Amino acid sequence: MHSAQFTLTVSCADQPGLIAAITGCIADGNGNILNLAQHTATDIGMFFCRIAFASREGFTEEGFSASFAKIAERFQMEWGLFADAKKKRVAVLVSKTSHCLYEILLKHADGELDCEIPVIVSNHPDLAHIATSFHIPFFQVDPAKGKDAYERDLEEILERYGTELIVLARYMQVMSPAFCRRWDGKIINIHHGFLPAFKGAKPYHQAWQKGVKIIGATGHFATEDLDQGPIIFQDVIRVSDTRSVEEFIRMGKDVERRVLVEAVRRYLAHSIFMYSGRTFVIE
Amino acid sequence: MHSAQFTLTVSCADQPGLIAAITGCIADGNGNILNLAQHTATDIGMFFCRIAFASREGFTEEGFSASFAKIAERFQMEWGLFADAKKKRVAVLVSKTSHCLYEILLKHADGELDCEIPVIVSNHPDLAHIATSFHIPFFQVDPAKGKDAYERDLEEILERYGTELIVLARYMQVMSPAFCRRWDGKIINIHHGFLPAFKGAKPYHQAWQKGVKIIGATGHFATEDLDQGPIIFQDVIRVSDTRSVEEFIRMGKDVERRVLVEAVRRYLAHSIFMYSGRTFVIE
Amino acid sequence: MHSAQFTLTVSCADQPGLIAAITGCIADGNGNILNLAQHTATDIGMFFCRIAFASREGFTEEGFSASFAKIAERFQMEWGLFADAKKKRVAVLVSKTSHCLYEILLKHADGELDCEIPVIVSNHPDLAHIATSFHIPFFQVDPAKGKDAYERDLEEILERYGTELIVLARYMQVMSPAFCRRWDGKIINIHHGFLPAFKGAKPYHQAWQKGVKIIGATGHFATEDLDQGPIIFQDVIRVSDTRSVEEFIRMGKDVERRVLVEAVRRYLAHSIFMYSGRTFVIE
Amino acid sequence: MHSAQFTLTVSCADQPGLIAAITGCIADGNGNILNLAQHTATDIGMFFCRIAFASREGFTEEGFSASFAKIAERFQMEWGLFADAKKKRVAVLVSKTSHCLYEILLKHADGELDCEIPVIVSNHPDLAHIATSFHIPFFQVDPAKGKDAYERDLEEILERYGTELIVLARYMQVMSPAFCRRWDGKIINIHHGFLPAFKGAKPYHQAWQKGVKIIGATGHFATEDLDQGPIIFQDVIRVSDTRSVEEFIRMGKDVERRVLVEAVRRYLAHSIFMYSGRTFVIE
Repeated sequence: MHSAQFTLTVSCADQPGLIAAITGCIADGNGNILNLAQHTATDIGMFFCRIAFASREGFTEEGFSASFAKIAERFQMEWGLFADAKKKRVAVLVSKTSHCLYEILLKHADGELDCEIPVIVSNHPDLAHIATSFHIPFFQVDPAKGKDAYERDLEEILERYGTELIVLARYMQVMSPAFCRRWDGKIINIHHGFLPAFKGAKPYHQAWQKGVKIIGATGHFATEDLDQGPIIFQDVIRVSDTRSVEEFIRMGKDVERRVLVEAVRRYLAHSIFMYSGRTFVIE
Repeated sequence: MHSAQFTLTVSCADQPGLIAAITGCIADGNGNILNLAQHTATDIGMFFCRIAFASREGFTEEGFSASFAKIAERFQMEWGLFADAKKKRVAVLVSKTSHCLYEILLKHADGELDCEIPVIVSNHPDLAHIATSFHIPFFQVDPAKGKDAYERDLEEILERYGTELIVLARYMQVMSPAFCRRWDGKIINIHHGFLPAFKGAKPYHQAWQKGVKIIGATGHFATEDLDQGPIIFQDVIRVSDTRSVEEFIRMGKDVERRVLVEAVRRYLAHSIFMYSGRTFVIE
Repeated sequence: MHSAQFTLTVSCADQPGLIAAITGCIADGNGNILNLAQHTATDIGMFFCRIAFASREGFTEEGFSASFAKIAERFQMEWGLFADAKKKRVAVLVSKTSHCLYEILLKHADGELDCEIPVIVSNHPDLAHIATSFHIPFFQVDPAKGKDAYERDLEEILERYGTELIVLARYMQVMSPAFCRRWDGKIINIHHGFLPAFKGAKPYHQAWQKGVKIIGATGHFATEDLDQGPIIFQDVIRVSDTRSVEEFIRMGKDVERRVLVEAVRRYLAHSIFMYSGRTFVIE
Repeated sequence: MHSAQFTLTVSCADQPGLIAAITGCIADGNGNILNLAQHTATDIGMFFCRIAFASREGFTEEGFSASFAKIAERFQMEWGLFADAKKKRVAVLVSKTSHCLYEILLKHADGELDCEIPVIVSNHPDLAHIATSFHIPFFQVDPAKGKDAYERDLEEILERYGTELIVLARYMQVMSPAFCRRWDGKIINIHHGFLPAFKGAKPYHQAWQKGVKIIGATGHFATEDLDQGPIIFQDVIRVSDTRSVEEFIRMGKDVERRVLVEAVRRYLAHSIFMYSGRTFVIE
């Protein structure tokens, strides 16, 4: 048996002995820790931990899981065990704007996004040629049929391709609350404003009118409340007052695409913990 | 007659020939342009211009002003002429927190804030020793007497020291609408949040609860609407989710003091233009 | 006659009356100034100015040039007049790495690089498919023939496509001194280190071994002295000591592509002035 | 017995079971881990770990050290155990420039530098009043006597005040190789250039002449090789080509003071590991 790599995530109320118990279980189960990142959020008394480890001879996923389940029960942990070899299947949803889609496909092609991208779906035909040039199936779903029919078609495609994560790459279509709930914590969206400022439409116009000196973008989980979901990653750039709204939009594109990829990267690395309506990204 | 330096600011609706008319008038009046910064905000059709120039033999402030007034009338300009030798008199208002006060006094002592600081006023006695160590008169005004009496006392001190600009250096006292109107465009405040997000009290707590990944501070003109006044300068820092609210507060201090000083610096350099409820800072 | 836009660049020793003379000549010649950026480098007594203006009825390029030539002679100016409608022809040279080439092509396709890209040349066949997907002729020149023959072939291609600027988009081939001199000030290169630190090969490895906490990239004019040419644009990112050399390389790619595009953008906007062996970028 | 806090640092060649062994020993010794930061530098096969823990009833420093020594021997670890209650004694050396000294004293007064500052020493009298206003003994040592006598006097003062770390806060005097060796790894210096670029004198002048677009400062351990010691922290700011050398110097001050304090903070937190001539700062 050759070595495989795994990621273990743990969150629970803070209490003595957590790390020794967790790392002891890994050692006893023939795992070799490669990286351990841990944080105790003292403001809320919570412990978050993410461990990358390699298996040694004698390790089995089932055996380890059974052993760890006992520890998890004792400390009332939420936990997950992920085999790195099993890539997440990510569907990308787009509309007419290409910069975020290109960024995801180029980073993926360069081996920098550790997932599969089996399908691209859009409410417009405009970006089909990009999907084609990267040899990924493209589907255009027509929203004119009404939201119910539209989302049924969409769900059918997502299911057919075994989708585990949905990435909205400047996808300009509001999802129904039911859809958001079904995919809770599994839709990553990019908002082209520095949330919580500038929710809603035309955030760059809002920013220009307000005269802010720094603009940004926010990668977040999509929820029923538009532009209110838990924030995963943000970035900003300084803007001069000599810039027009059009220049904000142009300059913002580079921030948007970077933020979206970084948010997805953190998701794929199992670095995102949710608690109390916000994320804790532990790297 | 030796050379003196002046700053000329001009704003008006955009139209052909503005710069040639302005710079021609300076040349004809025996001024020598050192620096010209200009911006036409095409989104709103406005022209903003800031010119630093040195006088040559034959220049008089009165003569130039009379000549320029004719140009200003022709193009319907708002304009100002400022002799660099005449330093603005700046009163600093503080409460209990020292980092912004120290920053202003140290930058001033180092010759980096081109103004006079004739007086420091506070609603608390805590920072008196700092004023003393910089040899600046300190006055404690008691808000317990009621806002009217308090603001009368404050105004009396401001007037006595010839105050032209008020800087609120983490001053924790809300001013009356009447006071804000009297000093409209002449009160610079620092808000410890990245406005327009996180208005009001405890912005770092709000930011932590929301799980934002970048925090900031905002230097702005104080107006009747709390934390809503025109923004002059902003800066931010990236924060990790492993940081507590207390660490946000500690890390934020460095941003606050920098932002406040940069906002004041821009005011003193006559770089701030107001239009349509926002600033245009032309550097 | 409808309006056309022009950019005028001027540099000379600093002296009184420059801006009035320049802007007066534009006004007299029926030009309408849209934007004026000017800087006097007092450390070296030099004046740099860049003016964007629109023509009004009565303006002719020849007439204006004749008038301006007199002013230029009087003040001993170096100057240039560029019609915005006449796009620069930019050849992109690449090797095996795609991220900088993609960035240039995507920004160009989005209308963010105001030039023509008539040809892509490489010393390797690897990136031909990218050129094809953007419908741009691709030529592979073989360095195995020896540098002289290689550069003759290259020059022939560059000439055939009317090349005015060469962009080295991670092109891994050292040019001969003669080639560099022929194209002096017309070759923009990206170096994947924060120059002047980390010249030469494997800058990320050098940076990692030195333990620097911030890495960067530099867009510069290529000269005979490798990695020593005048710097046009730089950017950096903070790196943690937990990052490997491979992660430096991955993270650096985003900096490199941004820096290269920003350097080219400044060239196309006629914002770069050269003096005393360095650039002055006036925006 | 009430709880006390400790920091344990460990470095050694990477090998299986390290974290489980370390954390198990802490648990067995009645320690409760508060924070664990760990990094395996795969490029060089080294493991670095920093653990903050609190003692529970039954913990003794001697008992734990004895137990841990056995583990350390087994894995050939370098390690250190530090009681947080025992503050490091830091001497600050200055010359004529005040901004770094002020920064250290203000941060210390605000509780943000967890150390004692028993003494300030200078080769000039200029900053004595600042030391006085913070109630810290100030000594002026005269370099005119010759380097040997000078360093003897200096050492005598450092010893008298129980100095454990020396901070050079823009101290303009080169130390002898012998002095540097005696205090190896215990002198933190601030260099006002982005090392390894711009070593030596007048780094801002060098940067201006080279035309770099970003300037910075570097906090590093002082060694015999001037400006070559291991880098602890760096920061940068973007500069426009419209800035003079004097403005570089002014703008650089803010970077210098921040970098110096952040470097000292990392030292006091026991976050700095040395290996192969560079630092690994593990936070």
